[in-house]
Amino acid sequence: MKFCSNCGTPVELRVPEGDNLPRYVCPACGVVHYQNPKIVVGCIPEWEDRILLCRRAIAPRHGLWTVPSGFMENAETLIQGAARETLEEANARVEMGSLYAIYNIPHINQVHVLFRARLLDLDFKPGIESLDVQLFGEAEIPWDTLAFRVIQEPLKRYFEERQQGKLGFHMGTIEELRK
Amino acid sequence: MKFCSNCGTPVELRVPEGDNLPRYVCPACGVVHYQNPKIVVGCIPEWEDRILLCRRAIAPRHGLWTVPSGFMENAETLIQGAARETLEEANARVEMGSLYAIYNIPHINQVHVLFRARLLDLDFKPGIESLDVQLFGEAEIPWDTLAFRVIQEPLKRYFEERQQGKLGFHMGTIEELRK
Ligand SMILES: [Zn+2]
Ligand SMILES: [Zn+2]
Repeated sequence: MKFCSNCGTPVELRVPEGDNLPRYVCPACGVVHYQNPKIVVGCIPEWEDRILLCRRAIAPRHGLWTVPSGFMENAETLIQGAARETLEEANARVEMGSLYAIYNIPHINQVHVLFRARLLDLDFKPGIESLDVQLFGEAEIPWDTLAFRVIQEPLKRYFEERQQGKLGFHMGTIEELRK
Repeated sequence: MKFCSNCGTPVELRVPEGDNLPRYVCPACGVVHYQNPKIVVGCIPEWEDRILLCRRAIAPRHGLWTVPSGFMENAETLIQGAARETLEEANARVEMGSLYAIYNIPHINQVHVLFRARLLDLDFKPGIESLDVQLFGEAEIPWDTLAFRVIQEPLKRYFEERQQGKLGFHMGTIEELRK
Protein backbone atom coordinates (compact mmCIF):
# COMPACT_ATOMS: atom_id res chain seq x y z
CA MET A 1 0.00 0.00 0.00
CA LYS A 2 1.42 3.32 -1.13
CA PHE A 3 -1.59 5.65 -1.39
CA CYS A 4 -4.68 6.23 0.75
CA SER A 5 -7.63 4.43 -0.86
CA ASN A 6 -9.96 7.04 0.64
CA CYS A 7 -8.31 10.28 -0.58
CA GLY A 8 -5.29 9.37 -2.78
CA THR A 9 -2.61 10.92 -0.52
CA PRO A 10 0.65 8.93 0.00
CA VAL A 11 0.31 6.91 3.24
CA GLU A 12 2.79 6.69 6.13
CA LEU A 13 3.69 3.48 7.96
CA ARG A 14 3.52 4.19 11.70
CA VAL A 15 2.00 2.98 14.98
CA PRO A 16 -1.29 4.86 15.52
CA GLU A 17 -1.98 6.25 19.01
CA GLY A 18 -3.41 3.53 21.27
CA ASP A 19 -2.22 0.79 18.90
CA ASN A 20 0.88 -1.39 19.12
CA LEU A 21 1.53 -2.36 15.50
CA PRO A 22 2.64 -0.25 12.53
CA ARG A 23 -0.23 0.53 10.15
CA TYR A 24 -0.60 2.44 6.92
CA VAL A 25 -2.03 5.78 8.08
CA CYS A 26 -3.17 8.67 5.87
CA PRO A 27 -1.66 11.99 6.97
CA ALA A 28 -4.39 13.91 5.10
CA CYS A 29 -7.73 12.24 5.99
CA GLY A 30 -6.49 10.26 9.03
CA VAL A 31 -7.83 6.86 7.91
CA VAL A 32 -5.92 3.87 9.31
CA HIS A 33 -5.68 1.13 6.67
CA TYR A 34 -5.68 -2.18 8.55
CA GLN A 35 -4.47 -5.29 6.74
CA ASN A 36 -5.81 -8.66 7.85
CA PRO A 37 -5.48 -12.34 6.93
CA LYS A 38 -7.52 -13.73 4.07
CA ILE A 39 -9.62 -16.89 4.18
CA VAL A 40 -9.14 -19.62 1.58
CA VAL A 41 -12.07 -22.07 1.44
CA GLY A 42 -12.19 -25.44 -0.23
CA CYS A 43 -13.42 -28.99 0.02
CA ILE A 44 -12.50 -32.62 -0.53
CA PRO A 45 -15.21 -33.80 -2.97
CA GLU A 46 -15.82 -37.53 -2.35
CA TRP A 47 -17.28 -40.10 -4.74
CA GLU A 48 -17.32 -43.57 -3.17
CA ASP A 49 -13.66 -44.19 -2.23
CA ARG A 50 -12.24 -41.59 -4.63
CA ILE A 51 -11.76 -37.84 -4.32
CA LEU A 52 -11.78 -35.11 -6.93
CA LEU A 53 -8.64 -33.09 -7.66
CA CYS A 54 -8.06 -30.22 -10.09
CA ARG A 55 -4.90 -29.57 -12.10
CA ARG A 56 -4.13 -25.86 -11.92
CA ALA A 57 -4.24 -23.77 -15.13
CA ILE A 58 -3.09 -20.64 -13.27
CA ALA A 59 -0.12 -19.37 -11.28
CA PRO A 60 1.15 -20.18 -8.72
CA ARG A 61 1.92 -23.88 -9.21
CA HIS A 62 0.59 -24.11 -12.77
CA GLY A 63 0.16 -27.75 -13.79
CA LEU A 64 0.07 -29.13 -10.23
CA TRP A 65 -2.89 -30.79 -8.51
CA THR A 66 -5.05 -29.48 -5.69
CA VAL A 67 -8.51 -29.72 -4.18
CA PRO A 68 -11.03 -27.10 -5.31
CA SER A 69 -10.38 -23.99 -3.19
CA GLY A 70 -9.92 -20.26 -3.39
CA PHE A 71 -10.35 -16.93 -1.64
CA MET A 72 -13.62 -16.49 0.23
CA GLU A 73 -15.63 -13.57 -1.17
CA ASN A 74 -17.49 -10.85 0.69
CA ALA A 75 -21.20 -11.56 1.39
CA GLU A 76 -20.89 -15.35 1.37
CA THR A 77 -20.56 -18.03 4.07
CA LEU A 78 -17.63 -20.46 4.31
CA ILE A 79 -19.78 -23.27 2.91
CA GLN A 80 -21.11 -21.11 0.07
CA GLY A 81 -17.54 -20.12 -0.79
CA ALA A 82 -16.29 -23.70 -0.83
CA ALA A 83 -19.22 -24.77 -3.05
CA ARG A 84 -18.67 -21.80 -5.38
CA GLU A 85 -14.98 -22.61 -5.82
CA THR A 86 -15.84 -26.25 -6.55
CA LEU A 87 -18.32 -25.19 -9.22
CA GLU A 88 -15.90 -22.64 -10.74
CA GLU A 89 -12.82 -24.87 -10.84
CA ALA A 90 -14.38 -28.26 -11.56
CA ASN A 91 -17.96 -27.56 -12.69
CA ALA A 92 -18.81 -29.96 -9.89
CA ARG A 93 -21.90 -29.91 -7.71
CA VAL A 94 -21.37 -31.01 -4.11
CA GLU A 95 -23.28 -31.31 -0.87
CA MET A 96 -20.97 -29.78 1.72
CA GLY A 97 -20.26 -31.99 4.73
CA SER A 98 -18.40 -31.51 7.98
CA LEU A 99 -15.53 -29.14 8.63
CA TYR A 100 -12.38 -31.23 8.16
CA ALA A 101 -9.37 -28.96 8.66
CA ILE A 102 -8.28 -25.41 9.38
CA TYR A 103 -4.69 -24.46 8.62
CA ASN A 104 -3.03 -21.20 9.55
CA ILE A 105 -0.34 -19.97 7.18
CA PRO A 106 0.87 -16.95 9.17
CA HIS A 107 3.82 -16.04 6.92
CA ILE A 108 1.47 -15.38 4.00
CA ASN A 109 -1.46 -14.13 6.10
CA GLN A 110 -3.91 -16.85 5.15
CA VAL A 111 -6.30 -19.17 6.97
CA HIS A 112 -7.38 -22.24 4.98
CA VAL A 113 -10.73 -23.85 5.77
CA LEU A 114 -11.39 -27.28 4.28
CA PHE A 115 -14.68 -29.22 4.31
CA ARG A 116 -15.54 -32.76 3.33
CA ALA A 117 -18.12 -32.80 0.54
CA ARG A 118 -20.23 -35.32 -1.34
CA LEU A 119 -20.02 -35.12 -5.12
CA LEU A 120 -23.61 -35.17 -6.43
CA ASP A 121 -22.90 -36.43 -9.97
CA LEU A 122 -20.02 -37.19 -12.34
CA ASP A 123 -20.73 -34.37 -14.80
CA PHE A 124 -17.63 -32.43 -13.79
CA LYS A 125 -15.16 -30.87 -16.20
CA PRO A 126 -12.33 -28.36 -15.92
CA GLY A 127 -13.32 -24.76 -15.23
CA ILE A 128 -11.32 -21.87 -16.68
CA GLU A 129 -8.73 -22.09 -13.87
CA SER A 130 -8.16 -25.86 -14.30
CA LEU A 131 -6.34 -27.89 -16.95
CA ASP A 132 -7.89 -31.17 -15.83
CA VAL A 133 -10.25 -32.58 -13.21
CA GLN A 134 -10.11 -36.22 -12.16
CA LEU A 135 -11.17 -38.67 -9.46
CA PHE A 136 -8.32 -40.36 -7.58
CA GLY A 137 -8.30 -43.37 -5.28
CA GLU A 138 -5.75 -43.38 -2.45
CA ALA A 139 -3.16 -45.32 -4.49
CA GLU A 140 -3.45 -42.87 -7.40
CA ILE A 141 -3.05 -39.54 -5.57
CA PRO A 142 -0.23 -37.59 -7.31
CA TRP A 143 1.61 -36.87 -4.05
CA ASP A 144 4.70 -35.55 -5.83
CA THR A 145 2.78 -33.07 -7.92
CA LEU A 146 0.36 -31.67 -5.35
CA ALA A 147 0.43 -27.89 -5.50
CA PHE A 148 0.61 -26.87 -1.85
CA ARG A 149 1.74 -28.17 1.54
CA VAL A 150 -1.58 -26.91 2.91
CA ILE A 151 -3.24 -29.54 0.69
CA GLN A 152 -0.69 -32.35 1.20
CA GLU A 153 -0.96 -32.34 4.99
CA PRO A 154 -4.73 -32.69 5.33
CA LEU A 155 -4.93 -35.18 2.42
CA LYS A 156 -2.29 -37.44 4.03
CA ARG A 157 -4.23 -37.33 7.27
CA TYR A 158 -7.50 -37.89 5.41
CA PHE A 159 -6.38 -41.21 3.93
CA GLU A 160 -4.70 -42.33 7.17
CA GLU A 161 -7.86 -41.61 9.12
CA ARG A 162 -10.07 -43.20 6.50
CA GLN A 163 -8.10 -46.44 6.82
CA GLN A 164 -8.66 -46.26 10.58
CA GLY A 165 -12.36 -45.63 10.03
CA LYS A 166 -12.48 -42.27 11.81
CA LEU A 167 -12.37 -38.88 10.10
CA GLY A 168 -12.07 -35.98 12.56
CA PHE A 169 -11.46 -32.26 12.52
CA HIS A 170 -7.88 -31.01 12.84
CA MET A 171 -6.29 -27.57 13.18
CA GLY A 172 -2.72 -26.98 12.10
CA THR A 173 -0.16 -24.41 11.05
CA ILE A 174 2.04 -24.40 7.95
CA GLU A 175 5.36 -22.81 8.94
CA GLU A 176 7.64 -21.00 6.49
CA LEU A 177 10.38 -23.27 5.13
CA ARG A 178 13.89 -22.22 6.13
CA LYS A 179 15.68 -20.51 3.30
CA MET B 1 -12.36 2.46 -1.86
CA LYS B 2 -12.03 5.55 -4.05
CA PHE B 3 -8.34 5.66 -5.04
CA CYS B 4 -5.82 3.02 -6.11
CA SER B 5 -3.61 2.15 -3.11
CA ASN B 6 -0.79 1.32 -5.54
CA CYS B 7 -0.66 4.53 -7.64
CA GLY B 8 -3.23 7.01 -6.25
CA THR B 9 -5.45 7.14 -9.37
CA PRO B 10 -9.26 7.12 -8.87
CA VAL B 11 -10.48 3.50 -9.21
CA GLU B 12 -13.38 2.20 -11.31
CA LEU B 13 -15.89 -0.41 -10.15
CA ARG B 14 -16.24 -3.01 -12.91
CA VAL B 15 -16.12 -6.74 -13.63
CA PRO B 16 -12.54 -7.61 -14.71
CA GLU B 17 -12.09 -9.92 -17.73
CA GLY B 18 -12.43 -13.56 -16.69
CA ASP B 19 -14.10 -12.58 -13.40
CA ASN B 20 -17.79 -12.54 -12.50
CA LEU B 21 -18.00 -9.95 -9.72
CA PRO B 22 -17.49 -6.18 -9.79
CA ARG B 23 -14.11 -5.15 -8.34
CA TYR B 24 -12.31 -1.89 -7.80
CA VAL B 25 -9.91 -1.74 -10.75
CA CYS B 26 -7.24 0.90 -11.38
CA PRO B 27 -7.46 2.30 -14.95
CA ALA B 28 -3.83 3.55 -14.71
CA CYS B 29 -1.76 0.68 -13.25
CA GLY B 30 -4.31 -2.12 -13.80
CA VAL B 31 -4.28 -3.47 -10.24
CA VAL B 32 -7.51 -5.23 -9.20
CA HIS B 33 -8.28 -4.44 -5.55
CA TYR B 34 -10.05 -7.51 -4.13
CA GLN B 35 -12.01 -7.13 -0.91
CA ASN B 36 -12.47 -10.18 1.31
CA PRO B 37 -14.09 -11.13 4.63
CA LYS B 38 -12.24 -10.44 7.86
CA ILE B 39 -11.74 -12.95 10.66
CA VAL B 40 -12.73 -12.08 14.23
CA VAL B 41 -11.11 -14.37 16.83
CA GLY B 42 -12.03 -14.77 20.45
CA CYS B 43 -12.51 -17.20 23.30
CA ILE B 44 -14.70 -18.17 26.23
CA PRO B 45 -12.26 -17.97 29.18
CA GLU B 46 -13.40 -20.51 31.81
CA TRP B 47 -12.68 -20.53 35.55
CA GLU B 48 -14.42 -23.44 37.28
CA ASP B 49 -18.11 -22.93 36.39
CA ARG B 50 -17.78 -19.25 35.54
CA ILE B 51 -16.71 -17.46 32.36
CA LEU B 52 -15.00 -14.13 31.83
CA LEU B 53 -16.76 -11.29 30.05
CA CYS B 54 -15.55 -7.78 29.17
CA ARG B 55 -17.65 -4.61 29.21
CA ARG B 56 -16.83 -2.62 26.09
CA ALA B 57 -15.17 0.80 26.42
CA ILE B 58 -15.30 1.38 22.66
CA ALA B 59 -17.83 1.69 19.86
CA PRO B 60 -19.81 -0.11 18.66
CA ARG B 61 -21.93 -1.27 21.64
CA HIS B 62 -20.09 0.84 24.24
CA GLY B 63 -21.01 -0.33 27.75
CA LEU B 64 -22.28 -3.77 26.68
CA TRP B 65 -20.71 -7.14 27.57
CA THR B 66 -18.87 -9.57 25.32
CA VAL B 67 -16.23 -12.28 25.33
CA PRO B 68 -12.67 -11.19 24.53
CA SER B 69 -12.42 -11.04 20.72
CA GLY B 70 -11.22 -8.88 17.88
CA PHE B 71 -9.85 -8.80 14.35
CA MET B 72 -7.18 -11.37 13.59
CA GLU B 73 -3.88 -9.71 12.63
CA ASN B 74 -1.51 -10.61 9.82
CA ALA B 75 1.32 -13.02 10.73
CA GLU B 76 -0.52 -14.72 13.60
CA THR B 77 -2.51 -17.96 13.96
CA LEU B 78 -6.15 -18.11 15.05
CA ILE B 79 -5.12 -19.28 18.53
CA GLN B 80 -2.44 -16.60 18.85
CA GLY B 81 -4.99 -13.99 17.85
CA ALA B 82 -7.58 -15.17 20.36
CA ALA B 83 -4.94 -15.20 23.15
CA ARG B 84 -3.70 -11.73 22.14
CA GLU B 85 -7.20 -10.25 22.24
CA THR B 86 -7.81 -11.82 25.67
CA LEU B 87 -4.60 -10.27 26.98
CA GLU B 88 -5.35 -6.88 25.42
CA GLU B 89 -8.97 -6.60 26.53
CA ALA B 90 -8.84 -8.33 29.92
CA ASN B 91 -5.14 -8.61 30.82
CA ALA B 92 -6.00 -12.29 31.17
CA ARG B 93 -3.72 -15.22 30.46
CA VAL B 94 -5.40 -18.31 29.03
CA GLU B 95 -4.54 -21.72 27.72
CA MET B 96 -6.50 -22.03 24.50
CA GLY B 97 -8.70 -25.13 24.24
CA SER B 98 -10.84 -26.61 21.51
CA LEU B 99 -12.55 -24.77 18.68
CA TYR B 100 -16.09 -24.11 19.89
CA ALA B 101 -17.91 -22.14 17.20
CA ILE B 102 -17.57 -20.53 13.80
CA TYR B 103 -20.18 -17.98 12.76
CA ASN B 104 -20.49 -16.44 9.33
CA ILE B 105 -21.86 -12.90 9.23
CA PRO B 106 -22.09 -12.45 5.46
CA HIS B 107 -23.85 -9.07 5.48
CA ILE B 108 -20.86 -7.46 7.23
CA ASN B 109 -18.21 -9.69 5.62
CA GLN B 110 -16.97 -11.31 8.83
CA VAL B 111 -16.21 -14.83 10.02
CA HIS B 112 -16.10 -15.22 13.82
CA VAL B 113 -13.97 -18.00 15.30
CA LEU B 114 -14.49 -18.81 18.99
CA PHE B 115 -12.40 -21.14 21.15
CA ARG B 116 -12.90 -22.46 24.66
CA ALA B 117 -10.02 -21.40 26.93
CA ARG B 118 -8.81 -22.06 30.47
CA LEU B 119 -8.10 -18.96 32.53
CA LEU B 120 -4.67 -19.47 34.11
CA ASP B 121 -5.05 -17.07 37.05
CA LEU B 122 -7.39 -14.42 38.47
CA ASP B 123 -5.07 -11.45 37.92
CA PHE B 124 -7.22 -10.01 35.15
CA LYS B 125 -8.25 -6.36 34.89
CA PRO B 126 -9.76 -4.17 32.16
CA GLY B 127 -7.53 -3.37 29.20
CA ILE B 128 -7.81 -0.03 27.43
CA GLU B 129 -10.78 -1.23 25.34
CA SER B 130 -12.75 -2.49 28.38
CA LEU B 131 -14.63 -0.67 31.15
CA ASP B 132 -14.87 -3.76 33.34
CA VAL B 133 -13.94 -7.44 33.34
CA GLN B 134 -15.81 -9.97 35.49
CA LEU B 135 -16.47 -13.66 35.97
CA PHE B 136 -20.09 -14.74 35.51
CA GLY B 137 -21.86 -17.95 36.45
CA GLU B 138 -24.72 -19.09 34.21
CA ALA B 139 -27.38 -17.38 36.36
CA GLU B 140 -25.49 -14.07 36.30
CA ILE B 141 -24.85 -13.71 32.55
CA PRO B 142 -26.14 -10.26 31.49
CA TRP B 143 -28.18 -11.64 28.58
CA ASP B 144 -29.99 -8.34 27.99
CA THR B 145 -26.79 -6.34 27.75
CA LEU B 146 -24.63 -8.65 25.62
CA ALA B 147 -23.07 -6.66 22.80
CA PHE B 148 -23.61 -8.90 19.77
CA ARG B 149 -25.88 -11.67 18.49
CA VAL B 150 -22.71 -13.49 17.40
CA ILE B 151 -21.85 -13.74 21.13
CA GLN B 152 -25.39 -14.43 22.44
CA GLU B 153 -25.96 -17.46 20.20
CA PRO B 154 -22.83 -19.46 21.08
CA LEU B 155 -23.08 -18.52 24.79
CA LYS B 156 -26.68 -19.76 24.99
CA ARG B 157 -25.64 -23.01 23.38
CA TYR B 158 -22.57 -23.19 25.63
CA PHE B 159 -24.63 -23.19 28.82
CA GLU B 160 -27.28 -25.53 27.39
CA GLU B 161 -24.60 -28.01 26.33
CA ARG B 162 -22.75 -27.69 29.63
CA GLN B 163 -25.92 -28.69 31.48
CA GLN B 164 -26.16 -31.71 29.19
CA GLY B 165 -22.50 -32.54 29.84
CA LYS B 166 -21.40 -32.30 26.20
CA LEU B 167 -19.71 -29.32 24.60
CA GLY B 168 -19.26 -29.66 20.84
CA PHE B 169 -18.27 -27.57 17.85
CA HIS B 170 -20.97 -25.73 15.94
CA MET B 171 -21.03 -23.67 12.75
CA GLY B 172 -23.71 -21.06 12.20
CA THR B 173 -24.69 -17.95 10.30
CA ILE B 174 -25.96 -14.65 11.67
CA GLU B 175 -28.44 -13.25 9.17
CA GLU B 176 -29.18 -9.57 8.74
CA LEU B 177 -32.26 -8.47 10.71
CA ARG B 178 -35.15 -7.29 8.57
CA LYS B 179 -35.44 -3.54 8.55
ZN1 LIG C 1 -6.55 9.68 3.07
ZN1 LIG D 1 -3.20 2.16 -9.77
